[in-house]
Amino acid sequence: MKALGKHLLVEYYGCDRVLLNDFAQIELLLNRAASLTGATIVASIFHPYAPQGVTGVVVVEESHLSIHTWPEYGYAAVDVYTCGNCFPELANDFLREQLGATSGEVLSILRGSTENVPMKVYNRAAFAR
Amino acid sequence: MKALGKHLLVEYYGCDRVLLNDFAQIELLLNRAASLTGATIVASIFHPYAPQGVTGVVVVEESHLSIHTWPEYGYAAVDVYTCGNCFPELANDFLREQLGATSGEVLSILRGSTENVPMKVYNRAAFAR
Repeated sequence: MKALGKHLLVEYYGCDRVLLNDFAQIELLLNRAASLTGATIVASIFHPYAPQGVTGVVVVEESHLSIHTWPEYGYAAVDVYTCGNCFPELANDFLREQLGATSGEVLSILRGSTENVPMKVYNRAAFAR
Repeated sequence: MKALGKHLLVEYYGCDRVLLNDFAQIELLLNRAASLTGATIVASIFHPYAPQGVTGVVVVEESHLSIHTWPEYGYAAVDVYTCGNCFPELANDFLREQLGATSGEVLSILRGSTENVPMKVYNRAAFAR
């Protein structure tokens, strides 16, 4: 049995609050993160939250990445979901550093199989500087 | 402590394989699912997988919905991630029925808080017809 996709759900806390509200920079960072995984970018949609924050998705041939930021809490929620020969962990390493997160949590999930079995949550890890 | 978002990760198995490869229908269904949650649609990006399948994201003011389909396995992976006063479960109810899923699994996760605490996986449920 081989999983069809790997999905990282990452919570970043203690981030640079000005950066979390910088629409252009957040879009740039998520696109760079997507490229780092080895995925092929199809499209990128970003949108400002009201009254602050940024929401955005990068659609890749291998699934998607998303980010939703709450500058008021120094918090960003990121998803890195890839199938095929990609390395979603590299996106996390990059974003954690770039966003200046002081702590956070990564939930790694294997999704889908060729044998109709439940998805497997195979790792949950906290990090802190 | 109040979670900032609620994220459903859903695996649909035994789906209608023709439908899973119908680009226009899948886009329509995910947009309808987004509306059913009460969210406000910002943008919709859909893309055909090679050699088959569909990948797509609907960005909403309240976060996003995504779908990735594998017609060859009758499988679709769906994410419904909303913040604010939305009802992500309604998207699941709708898609489960529309895709003709014979079984599946829903993982419900509370994401982000105002108090820098780990996210909580608060429910995991299998379903079958």
